Amino acid sequence: MNRPTEETLDPVNWNEIRTLGHQMIDDMIDYLQSLRDKPVWEKPTNEVKEVLNRSLPQEGQPVEEVYQEFLSYILPYNKGNIHPRFFAWVQGNGTPLGMLADMLASGMNPNTTIGDHAAMYVEQQVVEWSKEMFGFSKEASGLLVSGATMANLTALTVARNSLQDLQIRVKGTDDKLTVYCSSETHICVIKATEVLGIGSERTRIIPVTDTFQIDVEALISMIKADIAAGFRPFCVVGNAGTVNTGAVDPLEELYQICQEFGLWLHIDGAFGSLAKLTPTFAEKLKTIEKADSLAFDFHKWLHVPYESACVLIRDKQLHQSAFSSVPNYLTAHERGLAAGPEPLTNYGIELSRSFKALKVWMSLKEHGIQKYGRLVQQNIDQARYLGEKVSRTPNLELLVPVSMNIVCFRFNDGKHSEGALNQLNKEILMRLHESGIAAPSYTIIHGKYAIRTNITNHRTRLEDLDLLINAIIEIATGILVKVVEFDVNNPLHYSAFKDINYAWINKYFKVEQGDLDSLENPEKYFIATGGAVLLACRGDEILGTTALKLIGDNSLELCKMGVNEAARGLGIGYIIGEAAIQKAKALGTKRLYLETNSSLSPALNLYKKLGFSKVENFSSPYVRADVAMEMYL
Amino acid sequence: MNRPTEETLDPVNWNEIRTLGHQMIDDMIDYLQSLRDKPVWEKPTNEVKEVLNRSLPQEGQPVEEVYQEFLSYILPYNKGNIHPRFFAWVQGNGTPLGMLADMLASGMNPNTTIGDHAAMYVEQQVVEWSKEMFGFSKEASGLLVSGATMANLTALTVARNSLQDLQIRVKGTDDKLTVYCSSETHICVIKATEVLGIGSERTRIIPVTDTFQIDVEALISMIKADIAAGFRPFCVVGNAGTVNTGAVDPLEELYQICQEFGLWLHIDGAFGSLAKLTPTFAEKLKTIEKADSLAFDFHKWLHVPYESACVLIRDKQLHQSAFSSVPNYLTAHERGLAAGPEPLTNYGIELSRSFKALKVWMSLKEHGIQKYGRLVQQNIDQARYLGEKVSRTPNLELLVPVSMNIVCFRFNDGKHSEGALNQLNKEILMRLHESGIAAPSYTIIHGKYAIRTNITNHRTRLEDLDLLINAIIEIATGILVKVVEFDVNNPLHYSAFKDINYAWINKYFKVEQGDLDSLENPEKYFIATGGAVLLACRGDEILGTTALKLIGDNSLELCKMGVNEAARGLGIGYIIGEAAIQKAKALGTKRLYLETNSSLSPALNLYKKLGFSKVENFSSPYVRADVAMEMYL
Repeated sequence: MNRPTEETLDPVNWNEIRTLGHQMIDDMIDYLQSLRDKPVWEKPTNEVKEVLNRSLPQEGQPVEEVYQEFLSYILPYNKGNIHPRFFAWVQGNGTPLGMLADMLASGMNPNTTIGDHAAMYVEQQVVEWSKEMFGFSKEASGLLVSGATMANLTALTVARNSLQDLQIRVKGTDDKLTVYCSSETHICVIKATEVLGIGSERTRIIPVTDTFQIDVEALISMIKADIAAGFRPFCVVGNAGTVNTGAVDPLEELYQICQEFGLWLHIDGAFGSLAKLTPTFAEKLKTIEKADSLAFDFHKWLHVPYESACVLIRDKQLHQSAFSSVPNYLTAHERGLAAGPEPLTNYGIELSRSFKALKVWMSLKEHGIQKYGRLVQQNIDQARYLGEKVSRTPNLELLVPVSMNIVCFRFNDGKHSEGALNQLNKEILMRLHESGIAAPSYTIIHGKYAIRTNITNHRTRLEDLDLLINAIIEIATGILVKVVEFDVNNPLHYSAFKDINYAWINKYFKVEQGDLDSLENPEKYFIATGGAVLLACRGDEILGTTALKLIGDNSLELCKMGVNEAARGLGIGYIIGEAAIQKAKALGTKRLYLETNSSLSPALNLYKKLGFSKVENFSSPYVRADVAMEMYL
Repeated sequence: MNRPTEETLDPVNWNEIRTLGHQMIDDMIDYLQSLRDKPVWEKPTNEVKEVLNRSLPQEGQPVEEVYQEFLSYILPYNKGNIHPRFFAWVQGNGTPLGMLADMLASGMNPNTTIGDHAAMYVEQQVVEWSKEMFGFSKEASGLLVSGATMANLTALTVARNSLQDLQIRVKGTDDKLTVYCSSETHICVIKATEVLGIGSERTRIIPVTDTFQIDVEALISMIKADIAAGFRPFCVVGNAGTVNTGAVDPLEELYQICQEFGLWLHIDGAFGSLAKLTPTFAEKLKTIEKADSLAFDFHKWLHVPYESACVLIRDKQLHQSAFSSVPNYLTAHERGLAAGPEPLTNYGIELSRSFKALKVWMSLKEHGIQKYGRLVQQNIDQARYLGEKVSRTPNLELLVPVSMNIVCFRFNDGKHSEGALNQLNKEILMRLHESGIAAPSYTIIHGKYAIRTNITNHRTRLEDLDLLINAIIEIATGILVKVVEFDVNNPLHYSAFKDINYAWINKYFKVEQGDLDSLENPEKYFIATGGAVLLACRGDEILGTTALKLIGDNSLELCKMGVNEAARGLGIGYIIGEAAIQKAKALGTKRLYLETNSSLSPALNLYKKLGFSKVENFSSPYVRADVAMEMYL
């Protein structure tokens, strides 16, 4: 046999890939370091979608080119869950060391299922640490999995297969089995029972109380009714932090019920179980220590990069007998590569497994568990802060008391039907995403569309929550308030223009001659001379005014800007100011000018935000004018 | 509320993590570049196990320290599946760019399940590419999953739930369902049917033919018998490359059977389906294009780092209706972050998902699919080469004809019972692992312990397969051959010592006076003068000899080294040479000396390997001696 020229996927030039690696490190560290200055989210362009729709490459291309495409078409259009103001769903941020650990794991690339090698011991250790974190005994077992969904599926498989008289692995599942969980339970639990062949109709969905916790009396009644009807209840799933509202089921009561009826207690603690690390929740979540099984994520509230989660099972024997099987090609050996710890496939569904334990291991060593506890507490405190701020802010409505780290609220100015509010809040959320300022998500609470702010974010600061609230108010105003031109046939426009302006002038200063001239006859004073009057309206209400007066020199003066006392803080000034600028442009003006008073700092800030700069020397017919500003269009 | 001092998991000093990142790049590129010079596998030390058994860290430690522990305790004890001579199970190597892609994905860290962001489009594109690779139509659907186990479970869930009259998601599974696969099918398929509640006893295990392919007649009979008995057959699982031997089931016949009986054809093509990219298998695997579903791995024969696999489903509608469900918190929106492609959770079990598509995307772009095809073909050719080499090598027995990329063979010198051969081959394998030279694995073929050499390795060269064979022969010899001291009471020792040495001397040279003196009376010539005579024995047979003669100066001469013609190539020279060195040490000698002839190049190589170096000036009583060597002990 002639020896052929052998190819490999390794680089011809190792220095090239080394240089590229260094470039990537710099780019990614820059990227992570400057996250706060970037938008949370940016819509993928049509070019991105076109590039990511091309067909299978037949020939290769230089790695530098592949990387350039990554930089152009992928990195800028990231989901954003690593950003300080990402509050959607329940997602983690990751960390720089987590990122590097994934590189190390991927370079080593051990299939972590079987064999006598370091990755197996690291995974064992991470499982032991997990048991310590949650007060599980040394005799318990566990497995790293991709996410809480797989952790729940794994635990429920063990729970089902633990019914030893039924021999479910051999004979298949039984059509009398029933499992119980609240209506707030994560969809993945129902999906798991579907996969397991139990069926969603025998997954009994128990109603919740006002605080979104499982109704314990209803649960007991259902179990009793099922037993009476010949069903075989075998498992209750308790929530440690629901995805909608962060509610924690009364776990101790669930435990007692499980004891009484001989049921398996599984706890879905995807993110919420980590609150056990905090003073606030340590006691409330203590029952986790007695659960038969627990599902939780490292990639959410511990911020290990995706995917990394864990399932813990109290009874190692039941765990093993639910999954173990040793085909010929996996027989353990006493020595060599095939010795070492028990194959991990004996404890779960997957066979080939990555070294996901490494990023967990490095992260827990970098920070220590106590710091993680403090950071979880920090998010809980931030959620409480946000909840209080929502309650104090006019036109915002807290929809659920904050129980952990999720704040569900909506904009509600009391002037819309429920249907209209749902539409409005959805529009607010979509505009908020498009603004790139912050990204909460949404849910429906008793039929009400809620802006759902989940804080599992080690980068969030209180100032980010202030920004969120301000942005929502301004966006809502932008949606609700329309700017119209003064209608000389509408007497309401005359009265509103007068009333709003007299109100603020009288409050801060006193009425002068120029006010009398213009407010009594805006048509003549502004409109007929080539200027304009604008009104900000919400439905029939007129909430704000401004006017443009021709002052020669191709200039218009912006004046008579006022907002109804009751409509302050909604960002109406900005909206009407923007509209005035657009109007000035439409009138063909080159310059906008205004006069104001140095004591009116909100006004000064608004003008700056609109684009005005101070003018040093000026003279004014108004006594109250001690500041003048201008902008060129 | 007082604003607290906010903590974060981000580094206080970004330059520190940046510097560490650069260090890691250099270390990992060095590591990958020098793989070939490292042992395939090294047993984790007790210190490693102790360090990896410490309890949960309460406080953090500096990242540099964490990394140093990685370098000391983890990296050197890698599993080895990235090494050119790793041939165990079926595992991939990974690539340098794959490693870097995992870093980029982990830094971006998008939860790739829902939303309008780049990772969703990259995953869509990779699924489209997969459909192109296997000739699935544009209308088919697919999902990236962790491995073929999850791909098989996902496909079988769709197959089961496709029985629409049964409403399995709602009502649970039916106890009449039966599924069919060969006895060589991967254990994960049985595990999947167990998880699905079908039960292993209704997973009909069909026997295989001599070539380890499913027995089609037996399959048809079983299906008919099941129908007659009131069961409901719904799915046949065909193998494109079994894990034991690489066998491919007769897929076209399975397809026809499925058509006839209205069954779902699922193909487990974890690694073997990729052979469709080669000229050798393109035709044999063409039926994949017509299958209802396919499971395959990127992390095996395409060498994308773990975890990365894919499931393809012909009927997108059935795929979606097996999994989709939209809870309140996942409702799609028309704009903003929550718009974009359909949530991927509608097509599988998992909800939180990492950006595993990126490493597949970058890898396929780096190399192009045609190069992957050539590399798969290269491994198939290498397996054929190895199979032929095994067949030609004395004392090796090929246990299965090579059908794809797996070579199952054993050491068999015809002198042992089946039980003893099983023990012997297992011992050979464990010693081979311990040597660090190469790492095949094992399986049982018709009760015979097989050294199972799987070649899914882009780094393997033919020379690596030569090394493997040589190492196995030498290790077997080391196990079977014992070196004993000359027994002056055993007449067989006298005759063997004479016969073996006269044989080679007569073959290459002619007998001299020194030969006569020593060979006729070894006791007097060697032993009584403070030297020794050693014999290499396999059971009762004496296969080799050597002697040590005191030559003054605290020196012993190594001489009369001979191996039976019939036992050449087993490494006996090395074994007896090593034993002679140990004996010389035991006798307290400081220096070993020998004379030989420059034409005997295997002997010269052996002496070098044992540690001898040439002596420039010497005189010898032997005409044939033109080279002298020595070593200090």
